[in-house]
Amino acid sequence: MTNDAVAAVARSVRTLTIDAVQAANSGHPGMPMGVAELGALLYGEVLSHTPEDPAWTNRDRFVLSAGHGSMFLYSLLHLAGYDISLEDIRNFRQLGYKTPGHPEYGHTPGVETTTGPLGQGLANAVGLAIAEQMTAAAYNTAAHTIVDHYTYVIVGDGCLMEGITGEASSLAGHLKLGKLIAFYDSNKISIEGSTDLAFTEDVAARYRAYGWQVLSGDAYDPDVIRKLVAEAKGDTERPTLIVLTSVIGKGSPNKAGTHGVHGAALGDDEVALSKKEIGVAEDAMFFIDPDAVAFFAARRGELTDAHAQWKATFDAWASANPGLAEQWRAVQSGDLERYLAAAELPTYEPGSKEATRKASGAAIKALAKALPNLVGGSADLAPSNNTAMPEDGEFFADSRDGHTLHFGVREHAMAAIGNGLALYGGLRPFVATFLVFADYLRPGLRLSALMNIPTVYILTHDSIFIGEDGPTHQPIEHLAALRAIPNVQVFRPADGAETNRAWLTALRSEGPTCLVLTRQGLPELAKPAGWEADADRGGYVVQDAQGAPDAVVLATGSEVSLAIDAAGKSGKKVRVVSVTSVERLLAQDEAFHEKLMPAGVPVYAAEAGIPMGWEAFTGSRDRVFGLAGFGASGPGAKVAEHFGFTAAKLTEMLSR
Amino acid sequence: MTNDAVAAVARSVRTLTIDAVQAANSGHPGMPMGVAELGALLYGEVLSHTPEDPAWTNRDRFVLSAGHGSMFLYSLLHLAGYDISLEDIRNFRQLGYKTPGHPEYGHTPGVETTTGPLGQGLANAVGLAIAEQMTAAAYNTAAHTIVDHYTYVIVGDGCLMEGITGEASSLAGHLKLGKLIAFYDSNKISIEGSTDLAFTEDVAARYRAYGWQVLSGDAYDPDVIRKLVAEAKGDTERPTLIVLTSVIGKGSPNKAGTHGVHGAALGDDEVALSKKEIGVAEDAMFFIDPDAVAFFAARRGELTDAHAQWKATFDAWASANPGLAEQWRAVQSGDLERYLAAAELPTYEPGSKEATRKASGAAIKALAKALPNLVGGSADLAPSNNTAMPEDGEFFADSRDGHTLHFGVREHAMAAIGNGLALYGGLRPFVATFLVFADYLRPGLRLSALMNIPTVYILTHDSIFIGEDGPTHQPIEHLAALRAIPNVQVFRPADGAETNRAWLTALRSEGPTCLVLTRQGLPELAKPAGWEADADRGGYVVQDAQGAPDAVVLATGSEVSLAIDAAGKSGKKVRVVSVTSVERLLAQDEAFHEKLMPAGVPVYAAEAGIPMGWEAFTGSRDRVFGLAGFGASGPGAKVAEHFGFTAAKLTEMLSR
Repeated sequence: MTNDAVAAVARSVRTLTIDAVQAANSGHPGMPMGVAELGALLYGEVLSHTPEDPAWTNRDRFVLSAGHGSMFLYSLLHLAGYDISLEDIRNFRQLGYKTPGHPEYGHTPGVETTTGPLGQGLANAVGLAIAEQMTAAAYNTAAHTIVDHYTYVIVGDGCLMEGITGEASSLAGHLKLGKLIAFYDSNKISIEGSTDLAFTEDVAARYRAYGWQVLSGDAYDPDVIRKLVAEAKGDTERPTLIVLTSVIGKGSPNKAGTHGVHGAALGDDEVALSKKEIGVAEDAMFFIDPDAVAFFAARRGELTDAHAQWKATFDAWASANPGLAEQWRAVQSGDLERYLAAAELPTYEPGSKEATRKASGAAIKALAKALPNLVGGSADLAPSNNTAMPEDGEFFADSRDGHTLHFGVREHAMAAIGNGLALYGGLRPFVATFLVFADYLRPGLRLSALMNIPTVYILTHDSIFIGEDGPTHQPIEHLAALRAIPNVQVFRPADGAETNRAWLTALRSEGPTCLVLTRQGLPELAKPAGWEADADRGGYVVQDAQGAPDAVVLATGSEVSLAIDAAGKSGKKVRVVSVTSVERLLAQDEAFHEKLMPAGVPVYAAEAGIPMGWEAFTGSRDRVFGLAGFGASGPGAKVAEHFGFTAAKLTEMLSR
Repeated sequence: MTNDAVAAVARSVRTLTIDAVQAANSGHPGMPMGVAELGALLYGEVLSHTPEDPAWTNRDRFVLSAGHGSMFLYSLLHLAGYDISLEDIRNFRQLGYKTPGHPEYGHTPGVETTTGPLGQGLANAVGLAIAEQMTAAAYNTAAHTIVDHYTYVIVGDGCLMEGITGEASSLAGHLKLGKLIAFYDSNKISIEGSTDLAFTEDVAARYRAYGWQVLSGDAYDPDVIRKLVAEAKGDTERPTLIVLTSVIGKGSPNKAGTHGVHGAALGDDEVALSKKEIGVAEDAMFFIDPDAVAFFAARRGELTDAHAQWKATFDAWASANPGLAEQWRAVQSGDLERYLAAAELPTYEPGSKEATRKASGAAIKALAKALPNLVGGSADLAPSNNTAMPEDGEFFADSRDGHTLHFGVREHAMAAIGNGLALYGGLRPFVATFLVFADYLRPGLRLSALMNIPTVYILTHDSIFIGEDGPTHQPIEHLAALRAIPNVQVFRPADGAETNRAWLTALRSEGPTCLVLTRQGLPELAKPAGWEADADRGGYVVQDAQGAPDAVVLATGSEVSLAIDAAGKSGKKVRVVSVTSVERLLAQDEAFHEKLMPAGVPVYAAEAGIPMGWEAFTGSRDRVFGLAGFGASGPGAKVAEHFGFTAAKLTEMLSR
């Protein structure tokens, strides 16, 4: 790529950005204008990819962590030949086009992950870089290399202020992810003004402390950027942070270098002045430099050839390794049924006792044996979350074939790294912590949900019954808060068999799943034959009344056995329904609801948490047996007694 | 304090810890045993405090960020003479005692903040250190110094892995909080094993990059610790991190230095062996060294004298500065009525239009003028959150009298720093970001709620009506998720007058408040006289039907005017209730509910979010007019149209 071509592409990025934001009268021109040359080099020269196959497994990954600069991506994807039309760009931030305000995975080809919530993109990139190493270790052979690529990410000042980038970067350095290359668009401006207002740390020194290589240079000298990328690639042991000194909104004569250009249209006058400065006719709307068009036309041919070469290597590899190739096709397509069918999940005898976290641990071990692509770990709570996969090895700098990750006490990065693993393709990731610390990873879970990707969240120690650790560790509002997020399915299994079922369902789902598990032992329930079909729809009758019921009690997890106990003592004909998933149950038709909850029969609900949400079934908060406030420190049973959360109290409610 | 006294106190901390954890068969002995000498020095020599007045404003603050080491605090507070009995320690982690599993503010004298959720304690300490500087700037005079103390904190490996400590530490360095001194209990062990599994960064270099002084030494040499503390105090420009190389569980011959001693009782055999190693009789239960008792008896006298000296200075200051002294008493007691009464809040004409974020901005300006102690800021969104207090100045290293904080893009630390400001006493803090990023600060909000302290959260851009920024920025589940947290009151005012009222209520509350505000303009509503009384109870009839209503619609924020619009077109007699706070409304008696929602009249609810929670009033999800999933990028009105969230659709629902 000549430097003239870089200039032509950068010019086009700037003008497309200016006009798109002005047309929408909304958006963030500052970032794309500020690092347009970097974009030109990335899409014109650095990235190994092909617009013809945006899902090509061995493509370089590029993440725009500073997602507000979405016009950076859209303009470059359009120029590079992805299926984003000029019409899409003319309709930036309008409904029905591929150019939403922030990049959205699944909505726009070439967008690797949804970004905007700051910092998460970098953590996603760490997940992608881990996935590349895992996948390379699993599939490359001495004769054939089919996975070997880089992961690039652009971060801004905002990303680097967020704690999640610190968490993710510390882990990336620890894991020696040498093929992760982050560009820091260092423009010294954030929304309130100069970064000097709040952010004067030495970022380069911080990243060196994390074990990164840190390089720096001018954002506007293509040769410098080329040299820095080469140096980054040259260090195979350390991830690299390339600090590019840039000017936000470069090209705008009056607004460049100010926070006025960060998140607002330039305005007609400044648009005109900017075009003049950029060297484009004022009346040229959505101008694309013909040299940019010519460049990408030629470049596209090169990329097609490179992709074809890879395909030939892949075919040779597949012929030489038919078993591996079959596995590759299965995991890449997400078709895990053959493995799930072979999983020897543990079995439980009714009446035996086991904590569901331990049942989950046993399921994980069985699934890890059966599935080639189950990967994950805990935020330093593996012994408590029961997430060990001892036969699958651990993923470290010197053991890329391991499947267990040690995330450290970094819940937020863990979730976003889990999303990166899920986005990469071919892997089925889980992450784990205590339910109460779902708060720490919530922003990552929201993005799992928004992208509808199948990260599994193992959340143990699920109620006041954890006891002594006290209210800081006792979830109260968390089940409701998790269920509140669209697309998230929350399972709170009542025993070992339900835990198995929840795991299978999680691995068969396209979107994220939360598995909410007990610390304490729960009795294995006797279940009616064929319970699984109803369980998959959200709930099943685990114990029915003799004859037409006087009342129905919905319960989850540890409260199912409590409800069975209370029902037996109530002196009424009480049906107990084990609700496997509130969201699934809500989604069923009237006939299914009628089957579980016959019209006219009062419905109660029992769950060791706030009542919120259960009124959708009970019609009233008065029939929800839950908790009103925070917990307390003491042995679990005594804490429950203290708050009146016992079978006897539920019996009282049912007997009223 | 002699080194023999240090040893005697440390010995007592270790034995109390061992026996307390063993008696509970639950808890974390590793940390208190590991840094017992540091504890002895802190409570015996370093801290300026007095057990006779745990709330003394000018005490040094000490925060145990590694809150699982609660026996460290309890044993030292007991020894130092705080109102924690040996009986409390014998009943560690039992209901009804002052020794819960993790330290709880308000539950145990001498506990400055609730810790356990890792990393937040350090951020609380940053808030306390900021508060000390603000308070000193506001009240010290040339003649008298009444506020001048240090803030100490102990962090462990887990705290330092969490992103929040990075956020808070970067800001602390930026603000040159030279009187903040953090001890890093560097024992190289976390729950999964050696920190080498996940945490190999150069912490010291990272902290230097934040602008901190970093010192290091041996955790077991009192003279070294003394020297390091003196050096820390000597640097008045930089916060200091003192890295103490320690051995977790020191004193346990077989478990010290292993993760086995982190979070479990030692077991009878190891308890006996440990006592032998520590030099205590095996059968001495809850042993306290007589030398420790003697030492603290003498020390207590010194502290009483120092406190009396301060009191004399304070009295002299109060005599010389009666106005300031009166203000001091008012703000320290939390009695703000005189200021609130004088606040000239903006007024609004029915029919005029204003975004509630702007109304909040105007209220803040008025309140900042009236209140001497309103402090706060935004996570780099001040221009969008409308949080400016231009006349109150900004808090920087060289302007300690400013009241506006620039938190940077650090939501999680912001919340925890806000909690530190609230805990300090005398200040009324607010923090601000977009509602959707309440997820990023949720763990801090949970601790505001658990401690029931009055941090105010300003959360703007509250629905899909923000439009173009798209689903990453459009809250859907957040109102429900915030309401789910016990003790949190959520106000989503419908117009300017309601915004004023919400602000006043927030400042009159003991616990945390979320003010959820619109980006878009809302019409000022005509209100019945005396609406405020019902509004304070959670809701009022903003527009009644002619005669007995056919239906009642509950609505909040932007949906109140939408509901009024829909009601008018429904052809029915519809009463519209503006719900100011769901939690307040739920807490009212039946008579109040009957007044707003007469029995037999169907109740509907309208809110631009998920329906969850509203069924408590409507009895069914079918009568909740809300949103089912994530939003989309486009102009707000078009997005609402796209999802069928319009007055016309609500009219349809009401007309059915």
